[in-house]
Amino acid sequence: MARRYGAAAPLAGPWNETIATLLDHRSVRGFLSDPVPAGTLETLIAAAQSAATSSNMQLWSAIAVTDPGKRKVLAEIAGNQKHIEQCPLYIAFIADMSRNERMSQAEQVTFENLPYLETFMVACIDAALAAQNAVVAAESLGLRTVYIGAMRNDPAQVHELLGLPPKAFVVFGLCVGYADPAAKNEVKPRLPQSTVLHHERYDAAPEARDRPAYDAEMAQFSSRNEMQATTWTARMLNRMGPIKSMNGRERIRATLAKLGFEIR
Amino acid sequence: MARRYGAAAPLAGPWNETIATLLDHRSVRGFLSDPVPAGTLETLIAAAQSAATSSNMQLWSAIAVTDPGKRKVLAEIAGNQKHIEQCPLYIAFIADMSRNERMSQAEQVTFENLPYLETFMVACIDAALAAQNAVVAAESLGLRTVYIGAMRNDPAQVHELLGLPPKAFVVFGLCVGYADPAAKNEVKPRLPQSTVLHHERYDAAPEARDRPAYDAEMAQFSSRNEMQATTWTARMLNRMGPIKSMNGRERIRATLAKLGFEIR
Repeated sequence: MARRYGAAAPLAGPWNETIATLLDHRSVRGFLSDPVPAGTLETLIAAAQSAATSSNMQLWSAIAVTDPGKRKVLAEIAGNQKHIEQCPLYIAFIADMSRNERMSQAEQVTFENLPYLETFMVACIDAALAAQNAVVAAESLGLRTVYIGAMRNDPAQVHELLGLPPKAFVVFGLCVGYADPAAKNEVKPRLPQSTVLHHERYDAAPEARDRPAYDAEMAQFSSRNEMQATTWTARMLNRMGPIKSMNGRERIRATLAKLGFEIR
Repeated sequence: MARRYGAAAPLAGPWNETIATLLDHRSVRGFLSDPVPAGTLETLIAAAQSAATSSNMQLWSAIAVTDPGKRKVLAEIAGNQKHIEQCPLYIAFIADMSRNERMSQAEQVTFENLPYLETFMVACIDAALAAQNAVVAAESLGLRTVYIGAMRNDPAQVHELLGLPPKAFVVFGLCVGYADPAAKNEVKPRLPQSTVLHHERYDAAPEARDRPAYDAEMAQFSSRNEMQATTWTARMLNRMGPIKSMNGRERIRATLAKLGFEIR
């Protein structure tokens, strides 16, 4: 709790080893070349499939990518994230409406629900719930992970590279492997609970006190880990301010339309 | 593995208690009135905040709702899901771009990234990753859960009821509590891994064999649990075919526009 929240840590409630593993999460971008144990992929996918899925629609799929040539292209699409090439296991998570559409075609029943934002959201959320279970399973085995949202920098190229059908796209990737102990990876502080957790009604009032406190925590964290003290506010102004920081993702709606997603 | 996949179960890979907990998930809709232990909410939110979040934007919030009047309205919105009233802990998970927008206003820096589908997706995915960690934490404590996607049946009314600002909406709710042992809750089989997990490239070929096998598993599951043998295919034709099964969610894009989401 202290590492996750700094001075703003709430009192710990019920606790066990699984919760300790969850709290200990940090994204890792430096991996050893050691392979993961045999059967790890199948265990992670079983954990992923055990997550809830809206109405059991199961609107997601996964592709394990090992081919070094493909990994290299994916790393380039992601702005040269070398860990995509280096990690022993790379899984692309797919928001996948194509499987259910194939059922629609095979059964000759129009699936009227497909072209809506609602169904698109369900596909993205199904993929996210599944992937997070895979992350928890991996971390419980002593592995580390990092999500690669930058697959969305160029969804059309990823789509082509992995041979996806229409109405399927890679919503994010996931690197899995053993952390390189030479890479410093500290638990990252998050916003105080008083900013994130509300009771009965949304209440933005605590932000006025919480944001400066969190800025101070993040400045200390970044100076310990990245040599340049930067507040959360400064990072957000940089990340959410200029359109160029979207790295092309501002075009995703148009690209997804070409890949068969109507998003009405 | 056998309960999750039936006859199509893959060989188990690495295994531990956390993975066993993940595999044992089932959604529960009948809860005892017993309260959850003190501090449970704070522990679940700490687990949720420990999930990855895109660029540390933390585009989600949560509201714990205890007021019986509010619970009743939420249950009605969700098509009279009584467990929303009965569970000891109900958490609404919010895709929340409003907090970062308030920063934009306070710092007088335009956040150009806000009106895009990309940022909306990140908010939904951030909320989903967080919520799934809360689910895993809850289940590790012997609690059970069920997601309530039906908060999206009427996002405007939920928005009003919980006093949300613009650019925030309840993407789903989560019931948490101790399962009523009188309610039968078996692990639900999922599609075979050969349909969901691909290697190097997407391959739809296994579906031709897998779907009939899964239909048989689901027919047996439903006859054991719900007294009417129904295949997965039949359920999907019913769920995804007619627009009426969306319960109004086909209007979500227009409603979200009114709540401040541009989704360009």
